[in-house]
Parts: sequence; C-alpha cells; structure tokens
Amino acid sequence: MGIPVLVTVDENYIHCLKVMLYSLKLNNLKQSFDIYLLHRNINKKAIDNLKTYNEKIGNNLIPICINGDIFINAPSSERYPQEMYYRLLAHKFLPESLSKIIYLDPDIIVINSIEKLWNLNIDGYLFAAAAHTWKTDIANNINHIRLKTKTDYFNSGVLLINLEECRKNIRENEIFDYVNEKGDGLILPDQDVLNALYSNRILQIEDALWNYDVRNYKSYKLFSHGEYDMDWVMKNTVFLHFCGNDKPWKKNYRYRFGPLYKHYAILSNRIERGE
Amino acid sequence: MGIPVLVTVDENYIHCLKVMLYSLKLNNLKQSFDIYLLHRNINKKAIDNLKTYNEKIGNNLIPICINGDIFINAPSSERYPQEMYYRLLAHKFLPESLSKIIYLDPDIIVINSIEKLWNLNIDGYLFAAAAHTWKTDIANNINHIRLKTKTDYFNSGVLLINLEECRKNIRENEIFDYVNEKGDGLILPDQDVLNALYSNRILQIEDALWNYDVRNYKSYKLFSHGEYDMDWVMKNTVFLHFCGNDKPWKKNYRYRFGPLYKHYAILSNRIERGE
Repeated sequence: MGIPVLVTVDENYIHCLKVMLYSLKLNNLKQSFDIYLLHRNINKKAIDNLKTYNEKIGNNLIPICINGDIFINAPSSERYPQEMYYRLLAHKFLPESLSKIIYLDPDIIVINSIEKLWNLNIDGYLFAAAAHTWKTDIANNINHIRLKTKTDYFNSGVLLINLEECRKNIRENEIFDYVNEKGDGLILPDQDVLNALYSNRILQIEDALWNYDVRNYKSYKLFSHGEYDMDWVMKNTVFLHFCGNDKPWKKNYRYRFGPLYKHYAILSNRIERGE
Repeated sequence: MGIPVLVTVDENYIHCLKVMLYSLKLNNLKQSFDIYLLHRNINKKAIDNLKTYNEKIGNNLIPICINGDIFINAPSSERYPQEMYYRLLAHKFLPESLSKIIYLDPDIIVINSIEKLWNLNIDGYLFAAAAHTWKTDIANNINHIRLKTKTDYFNSGVLLINLEECRKNIRENEIFDYVNEKGDGLILPDQDVLNALYSNRILQIEDALWNYDVRNYKSYKLFSHGEYDMDWVMKNTVFLHFCGNDKPWKKNYRYRFGPLYKHYAILSNRIERGE
C-alpha cells in the first residue's frame, strides 16, 4: 500500500500531471504512491499511457471513471463542469478502505518530503488546506463578505482530505443546493464551495510550506522579515503551486521558479520516452 | 567501463562536486561514469565519504593522489598552486588505457545528456572547449594581445581532453617555462596557459550548449535573436556553469538559475544522508 494521492484532470492536463507525479516521486524516493485519478472521459489510450508512465516511476495508477448518475441533480454547465465536484465528493468514489488522501492540483511541483502532511492529525476536521495569507487583508475581507466566511480564504489546490469525516458529514445535495442558489455568482466554483460550506472545518496549514504561490516570492520574503529566502524555500517548501493564468510550460513564463519547472518537464519527458 | 570524467578539487569544493556529480547522473541515467579525482592532499575520510556517495548514485570513483615529483621544477606559489597544472597534464596521471576524458569544473550542474560531447570527433586536436563568445570583442581583443592568441579566449571549465594527442604533444617543461616567463602576469593561470600555448589546437564547441555562463541569460538570448530563451536552455544546454565570484550555494545568490542549483544541492544532500 502506497500513500494515496488524488488527482482529477482532463486530457489537456495530463502532460503537467506527469511532471507533478515525477517530482513527487523524485523527492520522496522511499515512498510508493497509489495515484487515484478521478475522471469522466479520458480515452483508454491516454489512460494506458499514464499507467505505463506511473509504472516507470514506481507509482501505481488507479483510474476511476465517474458514472455521472450522482450528478443528475447537479447544476452543471460549461462554466461549472461536473469535475468541479470531484474533490469535494471524492469520498463517494474512492474505496471505503481509505481513511484519508492527499489531493494535488496538476500545476504543482513537489520539491521536498510530503511525509509531515501525510502524518498530520486531522481528527475532527474535513480537510487540511492552506490560505494564501500573503494576500492583502482586503482580498480576504471581500471573500468574507462574498461567501459569508470568517476564516482566511482557502486554496483548494492542495488538500489533505479526511475521507472518514467527509463520508459522515458531506452530502452532495447541500453542495448542489448551494451552487444552485448562487447561480453565476461563484468565481472559482469548487474553491468557493469549499470555503463557503466547510471553511470552519478546515485545519489551516502554512501556505509557504504546503501551497507556495510561485508568483509571490517577494511577498513571502517580505512578510517573513527575510526568513523565507530562496534557500529557505528550496529546503522547506514542499509544494510549489504555479497558480494563475501564466503557466510555466508556456513560452515566456516570467516567474523565478520557471527554470526549475521546465527542467522537471524535461526530466519527465525523458522518462516518458524511455531515455 | 563507464565514461571517464576528470575532476580536480580540494576539500573545500567537495560539497559542490557532489552536486555536480549527482546532476550528471540524474540527467544521464543510462550511462555509468568513472570519476577520476586528481588531488594532492584530501584526507582519507573525505575520500572514503566521496567514494560511498558515488556508489550510492551509481558512479565509480577513482581517486589519484598526485606525487609532487613532477612539479619539482614547476613555478608554484599560493597564487599558482600546483593544482593549476592537473588538467593540462592529466595525461601524465591517468591510465594509459584512456584515450580521452571529459573534464568538468565543480561549479557546474549538468542538465542534459553529455553523449554528443563524449562522441565528438577530436582527432588531431588536443582539447575541445568553449569560449564565452557573448563577451564583447573588446575582452577578446585584450586577451589576444595579452596572450598573443588569435582564437577566442577559451574557458577551461569544460574540456574534452584528447589524452592520446596530449601524451604526444604536451611537455610539462613548456608549461613551466611559460609560467616562469610570465611571472605574475597570468590572470587565470591554467586558463591563460591553455589559451596561450594550445589555443590553435583546440576544437571550439558552442558555449550555449557546453559551457553556459549562467550570469548571461539575457546576452545569450539577445545574441541568438531570441532563440535561446529559457525553454531552449532547459532543452538543449548541457552544462550550466556558475562562473564568477557569486556562487549559488551562498545566500542571496541573484542569478536566475539559482533555484535550480539550490534544488540540486538539496537532492544531493538527501542522497548523502540516505533519505
């Protein structure tokens, strides 16, 4: 049994999922991972290819194709595809034997050991997640008003999901009702739902360690009074999250972690080609 | 038999030699390497440690402690330590069975396959080396006058050494005589000697591929009319050379390849600690 990791991507994001998974493995060589892929319509060839890739790097891929029945009453549109519900309702699709799982966005690279997150005590919480606290209080205040929350606004890109607790406490209808009620008013649908409905049952973890927004090196450094310099980040940060519209697999990506991402993409490509 | 790689460091540089060797291996997984370490006085404990480290990453370390007799007539001082002669006279110390070898400075990381350099045809040349051609012509002209050369000024940090040809053509006394004659007039002693005595027998290789000066990303990009952007470098460049006094293992290193170097240092440290 490896450490279970949840991912939910469509075909367009498989290339960066591979980079993320390779970085996870290279920085956690002593661990094995069971990668649970929740998806709707990725074709068999792409799944087989991803399975082979995972075998090459020493992971075990478990693809789970979602039967859409559960979403028959779900508000769904191009803007709100049913995939937005996968991580909030993961407990519906994953084996009962799993009591918790780490969820990771594909636009992440892992650069240190995930062990401390995996071993975190989340008894009584639904999720552990980080908020991008470097953001101004103004952004936080707007989200408080918008979503009627009192906590920081959590980013849903990295989660430790307490599946046992979710099975007992999360009902799909409360999620669908909330989305229906909000209509077009959600900005980042799944993240907004996570915050609006469950923020008071989320264990907050430090974003500089567990969900580092790569656009904000200078802010992290400033707010830590210089402590979180590049040496600190490379030694301590576990998940570098390439948030936002600028993506490091594109040309002319300008943020300072770009070379590191691009190098991981090359390493991952080589594994793929068997070089 | 692995690909032979020559290194010559003192104890202070072992930490970065390890980073270089790890990056060499990670980016050339299908190759094995025989690492020839020419040294004068590295203690047994440090050598044993380096041997174990190399075994862990799948390399074979062959330490060669230099008997100083050959340098009895060599001009030598604090400014001109005898180590400066090691790479020019490597053919004196290495097994006769080796016909060529790749020399690498320790302040390098390898990010792609070295195969094309290893397979380069250097028949009739003593060395293959790169010049930092992005430098202004003025610097090149000064070196022409200073060292009476007609070629570009070669950097001695990455060399493919044609040992067979060196055995036939390089005499230690011509080197010692040249250094004696110049007195204190050499700026970078071994590099100056390489250029002054042998530049017309060096096969020039492209620095952007084989000896990329990490301080000059913008110049490379400019002189290549935009072609050598970050994607190009990550895909094509083989040796990133952290030239100059600013070193990436120090705090507050400011160049853009710093995060990549620091990450390799962390990966290498983990191997060292058996994590």
